[in-house]
Amino acid sequence: MNIERVSRNRSFGGFQDVYRHASQALGCGMNFGVYLPPAAERGACPVLYWLSGLTCTEQNFITKAGAQRYAAEHGVILVAPDTSPRGDDVADDEGYDLGQGAGFYLNAARKPWAKYYRMEDYVTGELAGIIEAEFNVTDKRGVCGHSMGGHGALTLFFRHPGMYQSVSALSPIVAPTQVPWGHKAFGAYLGDDRSAWAKHDATELVMTYEGPRSPILIDQGEADQFLTEQLRPELFEEACRDADYPLTLRRAGGYDHSYYFVASFIGDHIAHHAATLCED
Amino acid sequence: MNIERVSRNRSFGGFQDVYRHASQALGCGMNFGVYLPPAAERGACPVLYWLSGLTCTEQNFITKAGAQRYAAEHGVILVAPDTSPRGDDVADDEGYDLGQGAGFYLNAARKPWAKYYRMEDYVTGELAGIIEAEFNVTDKRGVCGHSMGGHGALTLFFRHPGMYQSVSALSPIVAPTQVPWGHKAFGAYLGDDRSAWAKHDATELVMTYEGPRSPILIDQGEADQFLTEQLRPELFEEACRDADYPLTLRRAGGYDHSYYFVASFIGDHIAHHAATLCED
Repeated sequence: MNIERVSRNRSFGGFQDVYRHASQALGCGMNFGVYLPPAAERGACPVLYWLSGLTCTEQNFITKAGAQRYAAEHGVILVAPDTSPRGDDVADDEGYDLGQGAGFYLNAARKPWAKYYRMEDYVTGELAGIIEAEFNVTDKRGVCGHSMGGHGALTLFFRHPGMYQSVSALSPIVAPTQVPWGHKAFGAYLGDDRSAWAKHDATELVMTYEGPRSPILIDQGEADQFLTEQLRPELFEEACRDADYPLTLRRAGGYDHSYYFVASFIGDHIAHHAATLCED
Repeated sequence: MNIERVSRNRSFGGFQDVYRHASQALGCGMNFGVYLPPAAERGACPVLYWLSGLTCTEQNFITKAGAQRYAAEHGVILVAPDTSPRGDDVADDEGYDLGQGAGFYLNAARKPWAKYYRMEDYVTGELAGIIEAEFNVTDKRGVCGHSMGGHGALTLFFRHPGMYQSVSALSPIVAPTQVPWGHKAFGAYLGDDRSAWAKHDATELVMTYEGPRSPILIDQGEADQFLTEQLRPELFEEACRDADYPLTLRRAGGYDHSYYFVASFIGDHIAHHAATLCED
């Protein structure tokens, strides 16, 4: 595996790096961010994968969330991939919610998407393999994300039992089969077969999940402009209740969907993951 | 005074706002950021003015520095103006280091700049007046900045004795009369008279300053790409030693000129200001 470091900035005593590599899973060049806390100079650290939302690249989280401070405190490596395959050759759509910047963390089954859009394979397979080969990491992994990336965190956790020992999300899409963003993306990537859709819907997945039951933390802003149409956390909350799955869903008054919200709560999320990932 | 709120985002229990107004001092429309900490809902708070560096608008600091967390903790209002007058009618230059985005926090004396480029009047007069009329503030003010904005913080502190009770800077331009950025900007804005330049040079100003001696905190990254040619903190350090002015200059190994550096140290700066501004 050949990765090239394209930037390195000292941050909170560690390093915020960006790497580029030719992805086999996606068939294109990809960037990903890696924050190495000071503790990484002394020994192996667990890894928290951050999955970003619609329109983001690897840059949004690393420049706006202020997560490095907390990762430095807890000794956690942060890995932040891009949100889709990229490039002039890669299929795209005019909308912000389909195609480049909107990979939805699944493997597409239909043309023209199937050739490149394999973000599930990328994140859980190729990228994890690179991180574990190239950096000094423990065998502990967590996954967290925002909006579409919150959907990614929850669904990858449920679909790959045991791969991630901790999971959380901020303003996630929790029920894509029931909201417009999911209808558009799943229709394009997966086709008309709704049974295929259900396999990428956290609210469906939690009801049949039989893996390790790591408690889920979700934060949701009550002034989020997408709350009632696209996010609908109450659907996941009810499913977790029915499935007796441990969920802490916090509703934060006045907060919107922006990175100001993410920055305000990311410290709690990193602490949530560290409590599991950093224990001896 | 007529100010319009153009955005409001909940952040760390307070509000990150952006306002727009027609500036009398500058003759154009201007944006500025205001962070209101939770304490601002209960009573008056002191104000810390943040002055940004070359190429920045009011957005860079409010999205990238992560300062809101610390301002919320200490109960300090943060005010972040743009770095120059703006607009199609406003004189400009092709370089990133002159004209729009590069006001240098002074009043220009020469055509075509003098008509609009009056950032010293704007920050110390009009903007402060707006903040004090429109928000519930105490009579305590601090000033802080990065790079060109660090130059602004130091020079406005020295040129307006007593206006700011606390001062600090990150990777500031400290001796503009001795470095290329200053030569270019001061030559354009002030003309050939070097005695006029000296009045906007912190290293010159500290030697004759007779106002209240608030201790200065400066952080400087040792891997800063502008360190030896444009910043040269040792010149200011020597002048402070000669003038017996209290300065703490910290050199941080490995840090560059970016907002990753600012984010890593802004907490210490807000604590420095709060120690003076928040005392009873």
